[in-house]
Amino acid sequence: MAYKLYYYDIRGGAEPIRMILSYGGVQFEDIRAPMFPLPPKLPTEIKERATWGTIPLMEFEGKKLNQSLAITRYFAKKFDLVGSNDFEAAQCDEYVDTVVDYVKPWVPILMEQDDVKRKGLEQEQKVKSKEQYMDKFEQIVKDNGGRFLVGNTLSWADIYLAHVLNSGELNHGIRFIDEYPALKSMFENVMNTPGIKEWMEKRPDTKY
Amino acid sequence: MAYKLYYYDIRGGAEPIRMILSYGGVQFEDIRAPMFPLPPKLPTEIKERATWGTIPLMEFEGKKLNQSLAITRYFAKKFDLVGSNDFEAAQCDEYVDTVVDYVKPWVPILMEQDDVKRKGLEQEQKVKSKEQYMDKFEQIVKDNGGRFLVGNTLSWADIYLAHVLNSGELNHGIRFIDEYPALKSMFENVMNTPGIKEWMEKRPDTKY
Repeated sequence: MAYKLYYYDIRGGAEPIRMILSYGGVQFEDIRAPMFPLPPKLPTEIKERATWGTIPLMEFEGKKLNQSLAITRYFAKKFDLVGSNDFEAAQCDEYVDTVVDYVKPWVPILMEQDDVKRKGLEQEQKVKSKEQYMDKFEQIVKDNGGRFLVGNTLSWADIYLAHVLNSGELNHGIRFIDEYPALKSMFENVMNTPGIKEWMEKRPDTKY
Repeated sequence: MAYKLYYYDIRGGAEPIRMILSYGGVQFEDIRAPMFPLPPKLPTEIKERATWGTIPLMEFEGKKLNQSLAITRYFAKKFDLVGSNDFEAAQCDEYVDTVVDYVKPWVPILMEQDDVKRKGLEQEQKVKSKEQYMDKFEQIVKDNGGRFLVGNTLSWADIYLAHVLNSGELNHGIRFIDEYPALKSMFENVMNTPGIKEWMEKRPDTKY
């Protein structure tokens, strides 16, 4: 197969790539290294293929790309998911980088093994996340007509945020979309998009 | 003035934006919030302008952009610094994200107040950085003809790496370019580029 995506056997940083390849109708080999036991040990064969020794790594048409956002943006552009002009492309970049910032403090919470402690941390982080990020993303979608983050078409910023909202529910049981109608509309729009809908139905069920 | 860049009074994450605006011949207002005492407290007036409460923030032509890499990439594209096709643009993205990864472990070292301890950490990190990043960047520039990271023209990946090599010398006294001839050639090429050369000569002298 011409397209090979190497990542761990989790959703994580490669899931938006998988969603966008599926949106674009690209058949790809979804090569998954074991995530457990933690910390994951990348198989030597994959580590040596990756330029910087890290994954995700994408191999296609004799080319190689590393770094999750570089890969995601490349395919987003290929499938017209980067807005309709250079400024909208930059807005997509801004929102994706902000979603990445939003995710960061949730990672150590996910790793907390004590259930009671984890639930406490989740509730604290939920309050912070709403004020710092979700209230603002809701307003952006609302001001923009209620369906998209950027311009008047689907972009990879919508897909990236929808993925993270979905993983927030799967990982922590937190459904921000129940509290934010514009984000709910954006989310459902992404999840009902041909290609993405089929991917979400058929993708492997993983812990993270 | 039509272009306003808000950041702290350091080089840091906004310096590649300043270098690229100078390369493009854009006159900009270089608005600098105090960095010290640490941790810096962003003035309310700036915090409220920034969508996510963080800087850098760029205001221009009635528009607003946040997130350092989103701003840098937008102006890089405007001044033809993103390679000559979509794959080269993705290679620029990959290399810039990798430079950002390279920088991360140096930040806590820079904050270490004990001089002896800091010098020890710097030597340790230098060894790791060479193996994980600089050996590979050297090879990439060498394989690519010896002057550029991507394609056969100057890109924002060159500017970003040159900035970080320069700050590594200013912050830690470590001159990687003395050990890597291709990186030295790339570095000197960036620093002698019209617009960037003048910026480097006239920019404020700051601690970081």
